[in-house]
Amino acid sequence: MSSLYDGNLLLPIEHVFRDPVHDYIHIQHQIILDLINSSEFQRLRRIKQLGTSSLTFHGAEHTRFTHSLGVYEITRRICDTFERNYATQTPGDGGWDDNERLVALCAALLHDIGHGPYSHTFEHIFKTDHEEITVSIITSPETEVYQILSKVSEDFPEKVASIIQKTYPNPQVVQLISSQIDADRMDYLLRDAYHTGVNYGTFDLTRILRVIRPYKDGIYFQMSGMHAVEDYIVSRYQMYMQVYFHPVSRGMEVILDHLLKRAKKMYVDPAIQFKDQLNLLGPFFEKKFTLKDYLKLDDGVLATYFTLWKEEKDPILSDLATRFLDRHPFKSVKFSSKTDMDLIEDLKAIIREAGYDTDYYTAINNSYDLPYDFYRPNQNTNRTQIELVRQDGTLVELSKASEIVSSIAGKVRGDERFYVPKEFLKPDASNEITLFEHLYDEFNRYIKNGAIIDPNKLVEDSPK
Amino acid sequence: MSSLYDGNLLLPIEHVFRDPVHDYIHIQHQIILDLINSSEFQRLRRIKQLGTSSLTFHGAEHTRFTHSLGVYEITRRICDTFERNYATQTPGDGGWDDNERLVALCAALLHDIGHGPYSHTFEHIFKTDHEEITVSIITSPETEVYQILSKVSEDFPEKVASIIQKTYPNPQVVQLISSQIDADRMDYLLRDAYHTGVNYGTFDLTRILRVIRPYKDGIYFQMSGMHAVEDYIVSRYQMYMQVYFHPVSRGMEVILDHLLKRAKKMYVDPAIQFKDQLNLLGPFFEKKFTLKDYLKLDDGVLATYFTLWKEEKDPILSDLATRFLDRHPFKSVKFSSKTDMDLIEDLKAIIREAGYDTDYYTAINNSYDLPYDFYRPNQNTNRTQIELVRQDGTLVELSKASEIVSSIAGKVRGDERFYVPKEFLKPDASNEITLFEHLYDEFNRYIKNGAIIDPNKLVEDSPK
Amino acid sequence: MSSLYDGNLLLPIEHVFRDPVHDYIHIQHQIILDLINSSEFQRLRRIKQLGTSSLTFHGAEHTRFTHSLGVYEITRRICDTFERNYATQTPGDGGWDDNERLVALCAALLHDIGHGPYSHTFEHIFKTDHEEITVSIITSPETEVYQILSKVSEDFPEKVASIIQKTYPNPQVVQLISSQIDADRMDYLLRDAYHTGVNYGTFDLTRILRVIRPYKDGIYFQMSGMHAVEDYIVSRYQMYMQVYFHPVSRGMEVILDHLLKRAKKMYVDPAIQFKDQLNLLGPFFEKKFTLKDYLKLDDGVLATYFTLWKEEKDPILSDLATRFLDRHPFKSVKFSSKTDMDLIEDLKAIIREAGYDTDYYTAINNSYDLPYDFYRPNQNTNRTQIELVRQDGTLVELSKASEIVSSIAGKVRGDERFYVPKEFLKPDASNEITLFEHLYDEFNRYIKNGAIIDPNKLVEDSPK
Amino acid sequence: MSSLYDGNLLLPIEHVFRDPVHDYIHIQHQIILDLINSSEFQRLRRIKQLGTSSLTFHGAEHTRFTHSLGVYEITRRICDTFERNYATQTPGDGGWDDNERLVALCAALLHDIGHGPYSHTFEHIFKTDHEEITVSIITSPETEVYQILSKVSEDFPEKVASIIQKTYPNPQVVQLISSQIDADRMDYLLRDAYHTGVNYGTFDLTRILRVIRPYKDGIYFQMSGMHAVEDYIVSRYQMYMQVYFHPVSRGMEVILDHLLKRAKKMYVDPAIQFKDQLNLLGPFFEKKFTLKDYLKLDDGVLATYFTLWKEEKDPILSDLATRFLDRHPFKSVKFSSKTDMDLIEDLKAIIREAGYDTDYYTAINNSYDLPYDFYRPNQNTNRTQIELVRQDGTLVELSKASEIVSSIAGKVRGDERFYVPKEFLKPDASNEITLFEHLYDEFNRYIKNGAIIDPNKLVEDSPK
Repeated sequence: MSSLYDGNLLLPIEHVFRDPVHDYIHIQHQIILDLINSSEFQRLRRIKQLGTSSLTFHGAEHTRFTHSLGVYEITRRICDTFERNYATQTPGDGGWDDNERLVALCAALLHDIGHGPYSHTFEHIFKTDHEEITVSIITSPETEVYQILSKVSEDFPEKVASIIQKTYPNPQVVQLISSQIDADRMDYLLRDAYHTGVNYGTFDLTRILRVIRPYKDGIYFQMSGMHAVEDYIVSRYQMYMQVYFHPVSRGMEVILDHLLKRAKKMYVDPAIQFKDQLNLLGPFFEKKFTLKDYLKLDDGVLATYFTLWKEEKDPILSDLATRFLDRHPFKSVKFSSKTDMDLIEDLKAIIREAGYDTDYYTAINNSYDLPYDFYRPNQNTNRTQIELVRQDGTLVELSKASEIVSSIAGKVRGDERFYVPKEFLKPDASNEITLFEHLYDEFNRYIKNGAIIDPNKLVEDSPK
Repeated sequence: MSSLYDGNLLLPIEHVFRDPVHDYIHIQHQIILDLINSSEFQRLRRIKQLGTSSLTFHGAEHTRFTHSLGVYEITRRICDTFERNYATQTPGDGGWDDNERLVALCAALLHDIGHGPYSHTFEHIFKTDHEEITVSIITSPETEVYQILSKVSEDFPEKVASIIQKTYPNPQVVQLISSQIDADRMDYLLRDAYHTGVNYGTFDLTRILRVIRPYKDGIYFQMSGMHAVEDYIVSRYQMYMQVYFHPVSRGMEVILDHLLKRAKKMYVDPAIQFKDQLNLLGPFFEKKFTLKDYLKLDDGVLATYFTLWKEEKDPILSDLATRFLDRHPFKSVKFSSKTDMDLIEDLKAIIREAGYDTDYYTAINNSYDLPYDFYRPNQNTNRTQIELVRQDGTLVELSKASEIVSSIAGKVRGDERFYVPKEFLKPDASNEITLFEHLYDEFNRYIKNGAIIDPNKLVEDSPK
Repeated sequence: MSSLYDGNLLLPIEHVFRDPVHDYIHIQHQIILDLINSSEFQRLRRIKQLGTSSLTFHGAEHTRFTHSLGVYEITRRICDTFERNYATQTPGDGGWDDNERLVALCAALLHDIGHGPYSHTFEHIFKTDHEEITVSIITSPETEVYQILSKVSEDFPEKVASIIQKTYPNPQVVQLISSQIDADRMDYLLRDAYHTGVNYGTFDLTRILRVIRPYKDGIYFQMSGMHAVEDYIVSRYQMYMQVYFHPVSRGMEVILDHLLKRAKKMYVDPAIQFKDQLNLLGPFFEKKFTLKDYLKLDDGVLATYFTLWKEEKDPILSDLATRFLDRHPFKSVKFSSKTDMDLIEDLKAIIREAGYDTDYYTAINNSYDLPYDFYRPNQNTNRTQIELVRQDGTLVELSKASEIVSSIAGKVRGDERFYVPKEFLKPDASNEITLFEHLYDEFNRYIKNGAIIDPNKLVEDSPK
Repeated sequence: MSSLYDGNLLLPIEHVFRDPVHDYIHIQHQIILDLINSSEFQRLRRIKQLGTSSLTFHGAEHTRFTHSLGVYEITRRICDTFERNYATQTPGDGGWDDNERLVALCAALLHDIGHGPYSHTFEHIFKTDHEEITVSIITSPETEVYQILSKVSEDFPEKVASIIQKTYPNPQVVQLISSQIDADRMDYLLRDAYHTGVNYGTFDLTRILRVIRPYKDGIYFQMSGMHAVEDYIVSRYQMYMQVYFHPVSRGMEVILDHLLKRAKKMYVDPAIQFKDQLNLLGPFFEKKFTLKDYLKLDDGVLATYFTLWKEEKDPILSDLATRFLDRHPFKSVKFSSKTDMDLIEDLKAIIREAGYDTDYYTAINNSYDLPYDFYRPNQNTNRTQIELVRQDGTLVELSKASEIVSSIAGKVRGDERFYVPKEFLKPDASNEITLFEHLYDEFNRYIKNGAIIDPNKLVEDSPK
């Protein structure tokens, strides 16, 4: 393949993008600039980073484009630190080989390129996989991304993809992009905290960049930085508890899920007259979509569908579309899937009696279903641990050194919630309750302190 | 009309929204909460505050929804200050009458509700007027906003609308919402600065809230706060110069303008086969749209059209849609409409020779065409001046007290630029120049220091 | 006593002080303004908030004056919230009685007024007690503070003092000023974080102010704010671990301690010619000081002594004064007082052999000796717990609701360190080691990973 | 001279100091670390950066130590930028020669080392000159600073000193440390804004660091950064107008001035029994001080004197010492030295009639007397201009390109104020006015809108 330029080319003058989180994003390679300018990457401007969370935290309107630039920038800064302080001297000495920089930067920039609109819900309904699609975008000759990457070398796209897939041979590079404390997580915590306006997501990035070090098996942290790493873990925990798992965002997510489920059912049901006017979702309803089909989707396309569906005759489709666009979240109560499933059936019966189709108007949502990952080192995944290194070179796993981390490590977080239309719960002072007053009263006998209880049992005082 | 609740109702417990700029937005009236939850207001979540500026400053992805909450909040804080310190004692004493609070808050919240996607460009092509539509949304019985407002009193919607129209009798209320230093401008400067990540838009809001005072003819500022007001004016100036008038954003705006112009031309031309698949823009192409049609539009609807148009056969439509979605801005040079129009004709001829239709591939853009207003008190508009008040009660107009403000007052800012496809200007090191090399060379004879010059005249050294 | 004004007087116009942490400090009572302008309160401008910590975190040069204003301001904001949302209706209903506001504000402002220079060390050497002195300043007719307070009512000074002493009958007021999560701690965490430039001390003050509530037995927090309170506890923990317990600050503190010890010994030893030129410390050396003597002391007075002592003939006094003024901290190693006391004797012997008086050139310092308090609810102190309240009014103690808090609750934090002159530890590359090379080598046989080990035992791998 | 280490030595591991303004100060040379640890440099910890301004803006308690580190850090970052982007290729090409880095860093760090306590006032009374003393500290063999510098080379101290004196041959280095937009000014604006808590001092440092460039005759700025430089000039202007020239700080400064003047008079008057107990100011009263004498002084030493003087019998000395320590500033009115000198004599007569010695109880203070410099390019000083460079290499002076800068350039700022004891002006509601009521009334006939007027002339409406 003839190449118009050497993909490795350094820009004669560094290019910068102003960034509210990192001040400047510094672009030093022509290839990085070209990737940012590619059609597939620009599409990330049209996909919100936090999906329905922006409907709870109104400032959080930032996109995956912005976040991807941030992951690139943190990776670049780590490479600078590694190169300055821990450059490899002899192969295998555990130092940093700066020849890895370009592939690491490309993987950092592109790690989320396969995401679609409201990925979590979309994947649930349409059985897509954003990581597979990321790999596909990077390695398919039809994409601009591939065209650009392949100018470096024929096997460069595959190399970049293998970092995403964690099969790249150098564990340092893999862990920079994907581990318990990687450039991805560091950027999204800071960025989501900045845009939501909460401050518990902030941690000491500059200090962490000072104590991060490469070694033979990946990356670790100097023991002197233990508290900075600990603080990062706690910030992450706080963001999950207070932002990512917020019940209201999930109350919008279940509406989205049911809305797409309804549309899919109508589309594939030959008995129903339901046409895809835009022909953009059709391939997904029919489970025969191409990469090209996928790359046409974004938040705006879905919202446009919903705007059209608001006027469809099907009352469920129209109502759910309205609830989503106009932001009328389902409300929820906590429950335990181990003990309360019978009670949920009782509640569903009440809801059905009020005339609702419980397939579309109730939902069970577990926060750990959310697309954000949490620290669970003991789980049955081959997750890399966070390692600290003492002065004499011996290692300690983080939760062994930190009682705080130990207290939250290895436990599945989040809660199980049962979602129903808000008219069943906590009416505002202004709400008119007329039709279903007895049903409403019956429903609320099952609720105490925001959780489901058995109305026929003695109520205990202990918190759920 | 029977009312389910008194529109004036205070919430039993204050409701808050977390906000990155003001920390919290405090909602104290049921009616404000209801307005926020209305369909027309939620739609603002889907319309970016800064339009194409987010394509230059990637962090600036915030929407008119967020900004509208901020304008409400600043207005609320000013009302609190006025009520605490300057409450009216006897009618006509120039103090603040807190009975005006609710109507002021509603007007603040709703002042931008008539905005559509990329308002400036959209209005240019389709001859719509966002202010008229704002009034229409507030006063049309079919809207949720009207339904909510009319619960306060039958004439309440008209009152709110008259503030937007500046015909409301109390000048204090009008100037809070719309004057040279109003809640609208104060919020957007702070918010745009926050999200772009620049800091020259910040000014001392808390200090300004301390020196703002009501008087018989509107609002003024204590002389002791002169420098704070001066700093606000300079911040505004800096934001216009560095953000709002940025040549790259305008290079995207001219593409958008030409793209919609092309689509409109194709739609109304009976000779061209061009169908509006979504039937959402049709009413606008045909100039017979309803309020309901307008309320279906948002950024995502336009982007969805562009995604569909990328695959249309018309090469201009398809190319411009691609340039917009994939962000390939036109580039520009400065010129003077007084002296350089002949040179521009020369340049257009070169561009035509290269095969471009100059109706769609060149543009003149003057930054003062942008939808943001700038301080020009001497212009032929009935603009309210910023007045300062001395200890003895006498007034001084701001530019009389501040040499800095005086230096930038009353002058039209911004520059005139001629836009062309980027292949004609400053190729990257990597660009391949083959076909049009002689045209490119010819073109660049006309360019020096980023401005148009006459290649046949002796070049002077003075800056343009 | 005749009064020139009613102490309760509200200022006609609110007075403000610009504050980097709270933006503005709002003064609304004449008496508060007068207290701030009193001689005793202005003296706090000359006493650093963090003592020797500013020698480790150079930005932390703020004083107790600044902090005291901040504690006042947070208390004022809580009073506003309490009055607006939880005003008492009938006596004993657990609501907030706004008649308590003035006494609470005075106590908040004055809570630290008895502090002297480097309080912790000063009290250690001179057996003073800053809390006793605070009470004394408030209740002694000779002080300006007393004169101002007594204008409110004859018993007002005693009331204010009783809040400091925790004997005031209203537990809400006592807990606002002194509890595990009081205005004092909230201000110093934010302020110390701001000035040191670290961000782990920040927590969500505005959210905590929203969930704090009065009840019959004091103050508690709504369950919905649990994570905000949890985050506050973690921030506090991080500040103790990373700032307040920093080994280098303690390495300066032990020098200060030994320096004052030396001066005192010389002063009281009739055999030594040592004169107190300023006659400001004499009363303390002789243990017969008055309140007036105490109020003359500040950081600058101590530093002036040290400047004079640098030129004294006594080599220990002169050397320690130089080490303190020129900031040459002792260095330290961790040890365990349970197992390593013999090893410390070995080390002292080495140091003595090198010619140092180990009474003045070695020190044991336990970080929990520091003047900052840590969360230890299970200890044998009558400390108030942090209580959360559920929707149904039942209470939960914080560590029962938060696994993180549970993990750090009830444990004494900090470490034991053995301090020696820095020449014995980790010489810089540039250091010249000549005279004591064998002593240095012998000394360092006892050190591994920054902690003391027994050089004659098999070294285990486990962390200290 | 034998050297224990090469002064040029790079530290094996970079050393950092946490800084609230620059996040981290990065130390890369052993010599820089040694200079910071020198006795003369540590002394800067005891000298406040803003003198009496901290008595108006209570957060501004930072010292010259902190600021000096900041100036060093900004210089270091500029060197990095210059070296990366504009390294010299051939001698005389106007590029940056990185051999200049060390001397530039040392000059940056030490540029303020000759400052004493409250320099401006101190120099006024004692005829000292901090710049001369800076040079003296750097070049006197008795100082630790000299000892450290001379390890680099014998003439290195002189080189560093010549930068301070602006006689160093390389204008780039001189302008980095001292010009209209140098590392000194950039740090103090940001730092003073941070600690006072105002935000008008902030400007876009990172952007300025991107557009600064070396050239043959010094440093200039790319035209594309014009607005960033303009914003810096406006920020500086705002800080002068709102912080540095604040009338209350000057009202404390005149007390300090008169207090020292009184002490000096008493000391040198053989008729008065007045002893210098500490013998630290004596050499200055007698005008025969050594460098060693000077280096013993700091803010705390002066405050200790004042504490002692409070109890002196001389009523003026004792009263002024009390006013300073307890912060009772003189109040002021504006006047014009051109037209109002007779009126001032009238006012002095009134004050004398009230029993005050007007030599000590009145003062004229012109804000441009303050020790901060302001942008006055046209004045008769050989000040370097700020130059912008166009794409084609031609230069434009800043005020030619910026109307805002033009409006404030070349004009002496600040105002003339007449200071008197506060009892003569604007009594608080609570003040008792008894003895001098008629004098007070007479005095206030001369005051209108905060400025002096002629009570016997028709009062015009124009602002002063």
